[in-house]
Amino acid sequence: MTNDTGEGLPFRRVALIGLGLIGSSIARGVRETMPSVELLAFDSSAEVRVRAAPLNLVDILAADPAEAVAGADLVILCVPVGAMAEAGRSIAPHLAANAIVSDVGSSKGPVANALKEVLPDALIIPAHPIAGTENSGPEAGFAGLFRNRWCILTPEQGADPNAVARLEDFWQRLGARVEVMDAVRHDLVLAVTSHLPHLIAFTIVGTASHLEAVTEGEVIKYSAGGFRDFTRIAASDPVMWRDIFLSNREAVLEVLGRFLGDLRLLEEAIRGDDGDVLFDWFSRTRAIRRAIIYEGQDVAAPDFGRSTG
Amino acid sequence: MTNDTGEGLPFRRVALIGLGLIGSSIARGVRETMPSVELLAFDSSAEVRVRAAPLNLVDILAADPAEAVAGADLVILCVPVGAMAEAGRSIAPHLAANAIVSDVGSSKGPVANALKEVLPDALIIPAHPIAGTENSGPEAGFAGLFRNRWCILTPEQGADPNAVARLEDFWQRLGARVEVMDAVRHDLVLAVTSHLPHLIAFTIVGTASHLEAVTEGEVIKYSAGGFRDFTRIAASDPVMWRDIFLSNREAVLEVLGRFLGDLRLLEEAIRGDDGDVLFDWFSRTRAIRRAIIYEGQDVAAPDFGRSTG
Repeated sequence: MTNDTGEGLPFRRVALIGLGLIGSSIARGVRETMPSVELLAFDSSAEVRVRAAPLNLVDILAADPAEAVAGADLVILCVPVGAMAEAGRSIAPHLAANAIVSDVGSSKGPVANALKEVLPDALIIPAHPIAGTENSGPEAGFAGLFRNRWCILTPEQGADPNAVARLEDFWQRLGARVEVMDAVRHDLVLAVTSHLPHLIAFTIVGTASHLEAVTEGEVIKYSAGGFRDFTRIAASDPVMWRDIFLSNREAVLEVLGRFLGDLRLLEEAIRGDDGDVLFDWFSRTRAIRRAIIYEGQDVAAPDFGRSTG
Repeated sequence: MTNDTGEGLPFRRVALIGLGLIGSSIARGVRETMPSVELLAFDSSAEVRVRAAPLNLVDILAADPAEAVAGADLVILCVPVGAMAEAGRSIAPHLAANAIVSDVGSSKGPVANALKEVLPDALIIPAHPIAGTENSGPEAGFAGLFRNRWCILTPEQGADPNAVARLEDFWQRLGARVEVMDAVRHDLVLAVTSHLPHLIAFTIVGTASHLEAVTEGEVIKYSAGGFRDFTRIAASDPVMWRDIFLSNREAVLEVLGRFLGDLRLLEEAIRGDDGDVLFDWFSRTRAIRRAIIYEGQDVAAPDFGRSTG
């Protein structure tokens, strides 16, 4: 395999476009698990570049996209999905002939289409690591972010299997488990497991903070009754999430419709004093948490380990 | 004050009716912070009594309510709100003349009315500690559960201020901060900060688990995208929550209506490609989490401290 380095690493020179939570976590992860890989990065925000510089995340913090991608055999676009096309356009003239271009966007169909349009000759393998925190920026990243989390690759039909295997190897070295999936299916699955939960959390946190009858101070004070759980994901990056909802519109609206139908059903049960409907529904939802913990996708400790015994 | 013990403790003999998460946490907290207090308990479930016995939570694990409340100067009903009337009825003939009766129910107006009906001569001071985990049963309790959490007392107009002060002292010794509030206001505030969040979490976890297009296995696997956060409170006790929604029906339906209105607004923004509405909304919701952390009602660590750096 021509692209193997002496150590069997899948890539020898990796360029990151965007140094937010995800980009800076990849940089830290590569440093830790593939220290001989050459790391380059660029962020279109001068302010982010200034903040990233003292963090020593990469070998070369480039002043422009051309410098960042020169000679790189893997380029990962780590920008909000609405900024992917612009990021792709900025690197297009400077890509090495053997470069694989990937991304970390939370919607895959629309991103793949946007990238194909601006990078018609590039070898594109889209990816999405299902990992993150509510924090943003180069300071928020950490090497362990992807450990034991899933990373979904959505190569097109007929994509070079060797390129897919190398990207899979890369993510596994960062600690991720890798799944290959069709982009359309990815977008539907993530609408359920990520986009709808975020939409609902953003909504309820907004609702609670602008009620006239209950003050924001009261909401904050008594938030340990359940509300505080929602505030974590509702503290996520507004640009990133605006872009995701607009990009994955159809799937989000589809699962939102299902959610609204179920909510009406429970609303009617409350209104009609139908305790059996409520009890049956609430009994079924318990099992799914046990399965998530069993599959290693959440901690077993009660209250996420927040409460101390 | 006739009811002070030699050590200035607010009560000398405390009876707990119900030994689930809350009752068993009170027992552990009293043992730790007021070790000279005599502790008695009863649970109407023989199975719970058998499980509680080896945990040594109390001095006397009574075989019936009469034995549990005999001579107690504080009796706390720690049962689902739908079981309060029955619990009150069971202790009515056996209460000491000087006993204060309290509870830990999550709705206060309806519970107060139910208790007044079955205990017309008792001195009732309703209470609600805003604390809990998704786990249930006598094994799930721990002494620190109430530490730094709010406990709301909802005495009636004209209630004996000395009795209120003693109950306040009791909860403060367990580590709680105490607030006195009107029962109707409590029920509205908690509908926002606790009941609506639970209703929504129960709904979405149910929705995700019975979609045909996405399997439950996929939902579990990719839950770290946000969904897993909701599964924690959707794993809460089904009986407790059925009772809360039916008991606090009006306030829950009122805030649910507000939430649905806001959700429609964001739905229309997504449908109409209106990024500004989404961005503005998502920008505002970030601030409330910072306030909750500042007020000590959640941990500052990203991802509730689940992810490791």
